[in-house]
Amino acid sequence: MTNNIAVIQSIPILRANDQVAQDNRALLDSRDIFAVNIMASPGAGKTSLILRTIEALQGTPRVGVIEGDVASRVDAAKIAESGTPVVQINTQGGCHLEATMVSQALKKLPLNDIDLLFIENVGNLICPVEFRLGEHRNIMLLSVPEGSDKPYKYPSIFTVVDAIVINKIDLLPYCDFDLPAFRELVLGLNPQVQILPLSCQTRKGVSAWTRWLLETMHTS
Amino acid sequence: MTNNIAVIQSIPILRANDQVAQDNRALLDSRDIFAVNIMASPGAGKTSLILRTIEALQGTPRVGVIEGDVASRVDAAKIAESGTPVVQINTQGGCHLEATMVSQALKKLPLNDIDLLFIENVGNLICPVEFRLGEHRNIMLLSVPEGSDKPYKYPSIFTVVDAIVINKIDLLPYCDFDLPAFRELVLGLNPQVQILPLSCQTRKGVSAWTRWLLETMHTS
Repeated sequence: MTNNIAVIQSIPILRANDQVAQDNRALLDSRDIFAVNIMASPGAGKTSLILRTIEALQGTPRVGVIEGDVASRVDAAKIAESGTPVVQINTQGGCHLEATMVSQALKKLPLNDIDLLFIENVGNLICPVEFRLGEHRNIMLLSVPEGSDKPYKYPSIFTVVDAIVINKIDLLPYCDFDLPAFRELVLGLNPQVQILPLSCQTRKGVSAWTRWLLETMHTS
Repeated sequence: MTNNIAVIQSIPILRANDQVAQDNRALLDSRDIFAVNIMASPGAGKTSLILRTIEALQGTPRVGVIEGDVASRVDAAKIAESGTPVVQINTQGGCHLEATMVSQALKKLPLNDIDLLFIENVGNLICPVEFRLGEHRNIMLLSVPEGSDKPYKYPSIFTVVDAIVINKIDLLPYCDFDLPAFRELVLGLNPQVQILPLSCQTRKGVSAWTRWLLETMHTS
């Protein structure tokens, strides 16, 4: 009789998340949508980077956005102003996005009108690192005022990302940020990573970033 | 017979943490040590604030420091250079300090030589908020380049802190930070909170911060 008892093996949280992430990825691939997960500290400029990218791309490819925040709709409202399809996820205290949240958000987006999907993660350098969402590329955004010692203190994120965008380079003259030392440190942790300094304020470096983005999108 | 069976009720994580935090607090009180938990985003300037405070206090009261980081000893090394007793906690991936970590750190510090203990939490605006450590006061450090919209996005931390130190005010001319709007927003969430703008770079505002700190320490 015991052979007839249904047994559900509890799946560890991360593995369960990865299964949903794979489903998200399959859905995105079937619709020819390239997804980029953007991770950063609070205030590094994630939404500004997305807005500058939308502006630079001028509709080709067509962008869509999933905004992740603990609370509020301020970031989604900024994106919506640009006429870009956007869904806001509020984690209500949660410190990172999970694949199920993205799965729900994908149902609310006009997938036929999107070629490039930005997923803006919750502002946090630690917790989002372990949770795959179905993305094709992982990007870290680091801003100059945060300092160039971050790879020592938050090493994991530097090892998992495909590119590091260094934002707010217009503040380099006023901040203690050692760019050559940062490069050396990061390439030691992740030799393949692309490092792209720019300023969302002055737009310097934005075209190098979009060039890399389109290249990596078309070679995927 | 069943009455003789020992039953251990599993304690929820947060309640278990709070019990250890209470023990830490009792130990600190018995030694006349005032403890301040400092929370902030990565790179907001937590270690710089502690260094500037040590410099301004000139040995009275005598400072001790617990440094919390995911990895590395770079912050503790900077504090040690000032001749201040310091212990580094590495959370090894953990996104916040917990009371048991602080309890272990307290055993490594020369408690007889400390009147004021700074506990620098892991750089994270979300996860540390729920975990009491035994501290007497909670401080949030927010830096100007992070932007003045953070209370919308990370409301919890703004409601639990006794003071908000706004660092890097020397960058106000180059950043989009609306100080009056920020004050109004924060005081709506937490009417009793003290807001203290300063620059660890230029030292402007540091004396107002140490004045508040000594006042709150002596009225506790």
